[in-house]
Amino acid sequence: MKILHTADWHIGKTINGQSLIEDQKFILSKLFDAIKEHQPDIVVISGDLYDLHHPNKEAMVVLEDALSTINLELNTPVIAISGNHDGKERLNYGERWFEKTGLKIITGYDQLFEPIKVNDVNIYVMPYFTPADIRHVFEVKDIHTHQEATEFIVNKMKEVINEDETNILIGHLFVAGGESTDSERPLSIGTIETVSAQTFDIFDAVLLGHLHHPFAIQSDYIFYSGTPMQYSFSEANQAKGYRLFDFGHKSFKQSFIPIEPRRAFQVIQASYEDVIHEKLDIKHRDDYFHFKLSDMDHVTDPLMKIRSIYPNTLQISRQDYEVANDEIDVDVHTLTDLEIIESFYDHVTGEPLEGIKKEKIIALLENDLNKGAQE
Amino acid sequence: MKILHTADWHIGKTINGQSLIEDQKFILSKLFDAIKEHQPDIVVISGDLYDLHHPNKEAMVVLEDALSTINLELNTPVIAISGNHDGKERLNYGERWFEKTGLKIITGYDQLFEPIKVNDVNIYVMPYFTPADIRHVFEVKDIHTHQEATEFIVNKMKEVINEDETNILIGHLFVAGGESTDSERPLSIGTIETVSAQTFDIFDAVLLGHLHHPFAIQSDYIFYSGTPMQYSFSEANQAKGYRLFDFGHKSFKQSFIPIEPRRAFQVIQASYEDVIHEKLDIKHRDDYFHFKLSDMDHVTDPLMKIRSIYPNTLQISRQDYEVANDEIDVDVHTLTDLEIIESFYDHVTGEPLEGIKKEKIIALLENDLNKGAQE
Repeated sequence: MKILHTADWHIGKTINGQSLIEDQKFILSKLFDAIKEHQPDIVVISGDLYDLHHPNKEAMVVLEDALSTINLELNTPVIAISGNHDGKERLNYGERWFEKTGLKIITGYDQLFEPIKVNDVNIYVMPYFTPADIRHVFEVKDIHTHQEATEFIVNKMKEVINEDETNILIGHLFVAGGESTDSERPLSIGTIETVSAQTFDIFDAVLLGHLHHPFAIQSDYIFYSGTPMQYSFSEANQAKGYRLFDFGHKSFKQSFIPIEPRRAFQVIQASYEDVIHEKLDIKHRDDYFHFKLSDMDHVTDPLMKIRSIYPNTLQISRQDYEVANDEIDVDVHTLTDLEIIESFYDHVTGEPLEGIKKEKIIALLENDLNKGAQE
Repeated sequence: MKILHTADWHIGKTINGQSLIEDQKFILSKLFDAIKEHQPDIVVISGDLYDLHHPNKEAMVVLEDALSTINLELNTPVIAISGNHDGKERLNYGERWFEKTGLKIITGYDQLFEPIKVNDVNIYVMPYFTPADIRHVFEVKDIHTHQEATEFIVNKMKEVINEDETNILIGHLFVAGGESTDSERPLSIGTIETVSAQTFDIFDAVLLGHLHHPFAIQSDYIFYSGTPMQYSFSEANQAKGYRLFDFGHKSFKQSFIPIEPRRAFQVIQASYEDVIHEKLDIKHRDDYFHFKLSDMDHVTDPLMKIRSIYPNTLQISRQDYEVANDEIDVDVHTLTDLEIIESFYDHVTGEPLEGIKKEKIIALLENDLNKGAQE
C-alpha cells in the first residue's frame, strides 16, 4: 500500500509582505506530477494546509484547485488533518460531499478511535489539538501539557487497536528532540508543546506535520514530510519535498524525495559594496534573499538599490549592528548619558565612538535633548 | 416539474448586536419540512445565502448543514446563485464535489448561456453582478446601470434560448416597481439599481431574490420568494415563507406558502408606563420588539427595564422626540441662544420649555458654555 506523505502547505503565506502564492501553485504542480508518477493508493496531508484560520479568497481557490486536482482529476483518495494554522470549520467546509469521492478532511474528534482502513492498513488520525481542547471535549481535568493530552488520546486508541495489523498514525505535533525553524508558530506561552517519541510506540509508522524540516527527528518509525518548499530564511539550504511509503504487513519502506522550488530562499552574508557591484556568485537573481550586509554606515535606502538587482530580496540586516547575545555591563546610575552611549556604541560596533559621530552625539545631548527637558 | 423557491436566507445576520442564528436554524427546519411534504424536483435559492462576504464559523456550519440536509439527506437537487451579500469564492467553495450530488452553487459567468435542464424545463441562472463586473468580464464599455448590464446578458441569452420550450430565469436583482425594506443593502451611490420587468419577457417565469417582500412586485411571471423570516422592523407584519411552482409546457401554477417564525418582529407604539405596567395586549413576550414610546421624560435606562419584561427588545425610540419632516423656521442670527433652544424644544415636543428644564438650560448657557468660551 503506497502513501505519498506531505504536510504544512501553508497556502496563503506571506513573508515580509511578499505573497508566496505563485511559488505555492508551482510546488503543488510538482506534487501533482509526483502523484502521477508514483500512483500512490492515498495522499496524506498532515496538517497546516492553510497558513491562516481566515484564509483569503486566493488561498481558498488554490487549496480547492489542489484538492480537486488530486482527488477528482487524478482520482486519488486523500486523508488530510487540521494543523494549528487551520481554522477547523473553514478547512472542512463541504466534507460531507468530499468524502463521497474519498477526500477526507478530519478536523474533529469523532473519528479518533475509528481508524480508516486502506487496503490492509489501519490509519489513525489525530488533528492538532491543545490540552484545553482535550479537557473540554472529553470532560477531563489534569491535562495541561501536549504530552498528557496526546497520551490520553493514544491510550484510548490502544483500547481499539489490533496490534497484529499494520497501524499508522497521522498527526500534527512536535515530537521531543525535533528541530524547529522560524516559520512554525511560536510556542504558546506556558505550554510545553513537545511529545515524547515513545508515546507512539504502538504504531508501525507515524506520519507527521508541524515541524518544517523533513529530517527534524531521527527515528525509524516517526517521520516528518517537511514543508514542500522553504518558508523562512532559517530553512535556507533545507531539502524540501515529500515522502513515499510502501507498506507491507507490519513493515514498510520509505524515502524522502526532494523537489526543486520556483525560487530558493538564500541568506547571503557580504559587504554592501560587493552586492551592489555584483561581485557575488549568485546564479538565480530571482531567488528570495536575506542579505546580511556589512559596511553600510553611509547607505540610505539599501533595499531599493539591492532590489534593482535582486528583485525578490525580502530582508536586509546590517551586519555591523548585529548585537551579540552577551549583555552590556553598564551602571546607568553612575555614568553620564554620553558614557552610556559610548559604551553601547562600542558594544554593538566593536569600535570606539569618536570624531564627527561623537560630536554629533554631544550636540544632540546638549542642545536638543536638554532643551526638550526644560520645556 | 415542481420547484420550491426560496431566497435571501442571510445566514449569520445580526440586528443591533442580536444574533438571529437560532431563528435561522428554526426557519430552515421549517423549510426542510416543506421539502419533505411537497417533494419538489428541485430547490431554487435566489441569492444572499449568507449575510456577509466573510461569514463567521457558526454561519458556515449552519449553511453547510442546511445544504447537506436538503441535498444529501432529502436527496433534492439544488440550484443556488450568489447575491450581493455573498462572497463568491466562499459561497461556492467545494462546488466541484457538490455538483456530483446535484447541488449547483453558481457564482460566476461560465454558465450564463448554458441553461440547466431539469426535466423539460431550461433554467437560466444569473448570479448578482454590478455594471462594473459586466464591463470587466465581457470587456465592454458603455454599461453603467443595472438595466444596461442585465439587458446585455439577457440579449446574449436570447441568442441561445429556444422559445418553444419552457424557460425560467433565476436572478438576484431589483425589478423596477418593487417595494424595498430597511434590510436590503442600501443602493450604491450613483448607481440606478432597478431593472424593468419587460427586460425578462422572453422567460416563462423569473424566480428572484433581493427584495425581501414576497409580493414586492405584482406580475404574472416575475416572483420574489421573499426572505423566509423577518429581517427588520420594516418587515413587521409581512408574510414570510416560500413559493411553490408546478411547471407544465409553457405554463405553470404557483403559490406563496407562509411559515411561522420562532419569533416575530413587532413594532409597538405605546406610552412607557403602559409597557412597564404590562397594559398592552402582547401574546409572545419573546418576540423581537421595537418599542416607540412616549412619556419618557424622566426615564433612565429604559432598555434594561423593558428587557426585564420583553427580553428580546431590540430597539427603543423616544416617540416624544420624533422630529417631523417639516423644517423649523428660526432665524439663528437674530435670536438668542435660549430662544433658539426654546424654539427647538417646542418643535420636537409640542410643548413650551418651562420650569426646572428651562432653569437648567439657562444655567447651562450662563455657566458652562460661556465659561468654556472664555478659556
